[in-house]
Amino acid sequence: MERVELIVTGEYVVVDPARPWIENGAIAVNHGRIVSVGKSGGIMGRFEAERVLSRPHGLIIPGLINAHTHASMVLFRGLADDLPLKTWLEDHIFPAEAHLTPQLVSLGAELACAEMIRSGTTGFVDMYLFEDQVASVVDRVGLRGWLGEGVFDFPSPAFASGEEALSETQRLFDKWRGHERVTITVDPHTPYTCAPGLLKRCLEVSRRNDMMMVIHLAETDWENGEIKRRYGASPVRHLENLGLLGDWLLATHCVSVGHRDISILARHDVRIAHCPESNMKLGSGIAPVPAFIEEGITVCLGTDGAASNNDLDLLGEMDTAAKLPKGINRDPTLLSSVEALQMSTSWAAEALHRSSDLGTLEEGKYADFAVIDLDKVHLRPCYNPVSQVVYAAGAGDVQDVAVAGRLLMEDGRLVTIDEKGLMERLSKETVYFKGRVK
Amino acid sequence: MERVELIVTGEYVVVDPARPWIENGAIAVNHGRIVSVGKSGGIMGRFEAERVLSRPHGLIIPGLINAHTHASMVLFRGLADDLPLKTWLEDHIFPAEAHLTPQLVSLGAELACAEMIRSGTTGFVDMYLFEDQVASVVDRVGLRGWLGEGVFDFPSPAFASGEEALSETQRLFDKWRGHERVTITVDPHTPYTCAPGLLKRCLEVSRRNDMMMVIHLAETDWENGEIKRRYGASPVRHLENLGLLGDWLLATHCVSVGHRDISILARHDVRIAHCPESNMKLGSGIAPVPAFIEEGITVCLGTDGAASNNDLDLLGEMDTAAKLPKGINRDPTLLSSVEALQMSTSWAAEALHRSSDLGTLEEGKYADFAVIDLDKVHLRPCYNPVSQVVYAAGAGDVQDVAVAGRLLMEDGRLVTIDEKGLMERLSKETVYFKGRVK
Repeated sequence: MERVELIVTGEYVVVDPARPWIENGAIAVNHGRIVSVGKSGGIMGRFEAERVLSRPHGLIIPGLINAHTHASMVLFRGLADDLPLKTWLEDHIFPAEAHLTPQLVSLGAELACAEMIRSGTTGFVDMYLFEDQVASVVDRVGLRGWLGEGVFDFPSPAFASGEEALSETQRLFDKWRGHERVTITVDPHTPYTCAPGLLKRCLEVSRRNDMMMVIHLAETDWENGEIKRRYGASPVRHLENLGLLGDWLLATHCVSVGHRDISILARHDVRIAHCPESNMKLGSGIAPVPAFIEEGITVCLGTDGAASNNDLDLLGEMDTAAKLPKGINRDPTLLSSVEALQMSTSWAAEALHRSSDLGTLEEGKYADFAVIDLDKVHLRPCYNPVSQVVYAAGAGDVQDVAVAGRLLMEDGRLVTIDEKGLMERLSKETVYFKGRVK
Repeated sequence: MERVELIVTGEYVVVDPARPWIENGAIAVNHGRIVSVGKSGGIMGRFEAERVLSRPHGLIIPGLINAHTHASMVLFRGLADDLPLKTWLEDHIFPAEAHLTPQLVSLGAELACAEMIRSGTTGFVDMYLFEDQVASVVDRVGLRGWLGEGVFDFPSPAFASGEEALSETQRLFDKWRGHERVTITVDPHTPYTCAPGLLKRCLEVSRRNDMMMVIHLAETDWENGEIKRRYGASPVRHLENLGLLGDWLLATHCVSVGHRDISILARHDVRIAHCPESNMKLGSGIAPVPAFIEEGITVCLGTDGAASNNDLDLLGEMDTAAKLPKGINRDPTLLSSVEALQMSTSWAAEALHRSSDLGTLEEGKYADFAVIDLDKVHLRPCYNPVSQVVYAAGAGDVQDVAVAGRLLMEDGRLVTIDEKGLMERLSKETVYFKGRVK
């Protein structure tokens, strides 16, 4: 018998959304990696484990990856809704953000991590201010983070200039280099908040250190028109002209794009983070995801920040992502439940150049997984576990979550976060914002 | 001190989504009705209760009303997804339905009721086969039901003809007449499965007994074209020509409708049940809800059956309903969180001619309510409880549910349903369907 640290058995294991699921399956984990996956009987017969997590009603899936968020914006969840974009931003979000401190960003990040763990998320791509704080939280709570300091051409609560934000990016890169779970990215905010010179500087930093870049791109028709007015090209063409497009770029939103833009993104192997709920809630529109997939673009899924969603729940986001193209195009065969789950797992890993060690439960990869408890009235009968995850499961159904074999949630209890203490601190620290509402 | 049966105290009480919420509020309940609602201090000072349910983190809302479902179709949840409508219906759903028995419909209805209670629903509008079974379940579990036997011009597992289904409708009406929570409706299936003669017979039965009618109307462009081809009028005009339109009609879907159709529906005070998730999942399209509201039509919200959703969760449905018009029309001010909650509460009661005793937590109305536990990381901070319900809460957050003051769920435990026994029966009885998958 081979000795391993952990065996998890379940009613189903979805190793890879694109492959048949295993009924009565198990994974064996050692040194944080998946050593073997297969039928429970076979796994239990071959391995002796220090610990067996037995989940007879459990559906084991690859950990979900949130491809775009601003974690700490959970502090502004529901602060203002249903308003014109300009009013929402200028009268509510910007004034609130002006009061952000490193401590508040840390508090928000921890709350966001708790919420993401509770909804089966094992990694997230984050763009915000005081990102060093977010990195420290990610380090402490055990999630994976692809984290970038927002870079733009105007002062923020954190920086006086884009160049300062870029210096901070380099400092963060040097500080966190080699960390197993924290990866620093270069995050120019948008083509309209970063002048061409700053975008090129971002590219330099990205290429010098082999870092991914994250940008909000073509989120709205307004942006599309504004960039055309300023530079005579669509946002996508504008970035192409500047040399920014490449497989290092994770472009978020891509709502206001035409056929030619999509071809360009595909040709340069740019990856797209789709945020359907935020795009709808802000009235930005709906990204043409089936066309992205048709063109061979790697698409992943993000919640965006909680101020425009208002949650960080990828289980709900997959449901929306799968239904929306069907409704818009009046075609029920578009974006299957398999594809929706791929967007949150294997395709996200591919987008982040981490297919070799993340995104599925194949042998050799990190044991990043979530267990969904199927012993619920709304999850029975279960004919198809992938359909169940996408179309029926909710955040309240996640039972266990692990990153690199380390349990961050066990049987509904968070292991690395003191939830009670967190909620108490939150209640005190958000009094200021609460006073601004109504 | 006045004596009452029950007091429920919460962090917030949303009496009516359209009115300001009460912080630190409470409701006092006697003989199943709300006797008083206000600040906790005032209520506790004025009433002496046999029982006090103290929910310091609780958000008390009017019970949600699911305006359209086929409850027992939970048996087919995830049986087949992402297929062309014809394939889905003819190769999967119809063959599965051919094996339905009264016992299976009863089992499915009980499972559906469990799921609906768990997601804060206190009443639902149901159209299906063997509806007497559904009525018995509703009677037993304590929910409210507006229940109709599906009437159409071809044989079903329950009936040889539409006329037989209509006789059954009359029998059900007579049997359940005067029941406090069960209301029988007349349910012609669609304009394309019921010939004009049958539709007129439905109207007769409806008007003779003063019953509401429920119909699927203009669900798809195909239906619109087909009815025009057969009768030379849009589905809405066709029903108008037959005299079916009136304030007694709850028209479900109304996706494929033009401006003139909407004006006609408004003029006749027809009520619309909007089912956005099902309409998207089946590729039917997206109903123009802001136009309905603009025209003064009473719109309510339904999940449709779980085979095309795949859950019966109105909390998720409200989120979708609020975001979708914003995304489609690129206008973030459309369909506010207040309106989404109204669609599931006060507007639903209005649609069902029950504004006098249901739909809000005003004094004198039935104490149909749900308590949402805000002590969750994804529900904090809470600046706006209505926003929180619509945009952030999920089925897993519902703590208590009551109908006419009787608790059907208490602190997360179902009171009137033996969930364990139900799940065991379900597991046995769905083996046949499970064998048909893959």
